[in-house]
Amino acid sequence: MSYSTEEKNAIYRVIRERRDMRHFNQKPVDAEILYKLIQAAQQAPSVGYMQPWRFIRISDYDIRMHIYEMVKAEIAETAEHVGSKREAYMNLKLEGLRECAEVWVAALMEGRDEYVLGRRTMPEMDLASLSCAIQNVWLTARAEGIGVGWVSFFHPDELADLLNMPEGSYPAAVLCIGNVDAFYSEPLLKTEGWDNERNLDEILFENTWGQNCDL
Amino acid sequence: MSYSTEEKNAIYRVIRERRDMRHFNQKPVDAEILYKLIQAAQQAPSVGYMQPWRFIRISDYDIRMHIYEMVKAEIAETAEHVGSKREAYMNLKLEGLRECAEVWVAALMEGRDEYVLGRRTMPEMDLASLSCAIQNVWLTARAEGIGVGWVSFFHPDELADLLNMPEGSYPAAVLCIGNVDAFYSEPLLKTEGWDNERNLDEILFENTWGQNCDL
Repeated sequence: MSYSTEEKNAIYRVIRERRDMRHFNQKPVDAEILYKLIQAAQQAPSVGYMQPWRFIRISDYDIRMHIYEMVKAEIAETAEHVGSKREAYMNLKLEGLRECAEVWVAALMEGRDEYVLGRRTMPEMDLASLSCAIQNVWLTARAEGIGVGWVSFFHPDELADLLNMPEGSYPAAVLCIGNVDAFYSEPLLKTEGWDNERNLDEILFENTWGQNCDL
Repeated sequence: MSYSTEEKNAIYRVIRERRDMRHFNQKPVDAEILYKLIQAAQQAPSVGYMQPWRFIRISDYDIRMHIYEMVKAEIAETAEHVGSKREAYMNLKLEGLRECAEVWVAALMEGRDEYVLGRRTMPEMDLASLSCAIQNVWLTARAEGIGVGWVSFFHPDELADLLNMPEGSYPAAVLCIGNVDAFYSEPLLKTEGWDNERNLDEILFENTWGQNCDL
């Protein structure tokens, strides 16, 4: 039931080479590829099979620019908290939002309280399911040579209002999707010295928190 | 920058064939494969490059059985809410937890409040990052012929206590990982008639909620 070495290598390659992109060119994305992205989302796991994912494709330029202004305002707010030296980095996200071929909002559906299976003590499992769906979109896009950037600089209630989202629904991501001239070779924040990759012994424990695990 | 057709097919295959598994055999999982799983987690995207993911491998039988009892109690609670006809299904998860070769708890690290980038208005983006990491683990496991089941039937505070997790950390998943005799051909809850797969027009809108989108 294990896949061939060639298949595994392709899967490890896409996991390794997927990047959060901020630089796009304006070449349109083929409809056939967009269809593959949404199909990959639908094949994600979901708690209690609730399939809470909804996507809103923003093709209207005025709505896109309204989102752009929202993100710009939140980046300015965040800059006051994290220091202005990060502002240049954050503004890359903003420019990506203007330049990318496609903007999609990824959201949680309304009426989620009816779904109790696997969510009675952990209602946030709906966001976990949506996130798995977005990761599927991201990997599929990378395989097709398409970049994706996840933007979370906005007030969810404002974005929900803009898109006439029903009460109880929730926008979790603005996805910038588009053709790119090149993919970054590593996460941009790593390149910029923001942080290093965690060591294995920092993230993997055995039986109790903090106890070293030798695989 | 697009991958070869063979590579794309491998990636689409694993996205399509990944399943939430409840039936395991007890054959151990090679350490080499476990290492690939944790490596795939580390290559996930994370908001502000915070890498909030932590994993606790449960190799101690008594701790596993303690988790088993916690899950059993929560399944009984949930059954009172969703109806006892679902109990048989939920108990499959319980048996999977007893039989699988590996139990890993996936958690959010402590000290997350320090990370503001991309989380000022949406602090739950940390869970989104962890979920992307788990999806990477899931896909990698499937390629290796290993099943993964995500269990969220527990009280997070009880599980955190059991594993001596520090204040501010949060256990988001109990992952059952192990060899299986066969993978389900479709989600088990679909097979059981719990629900159907959503149609594309139910999950994809254009510019405003509910408006049809033709790709």
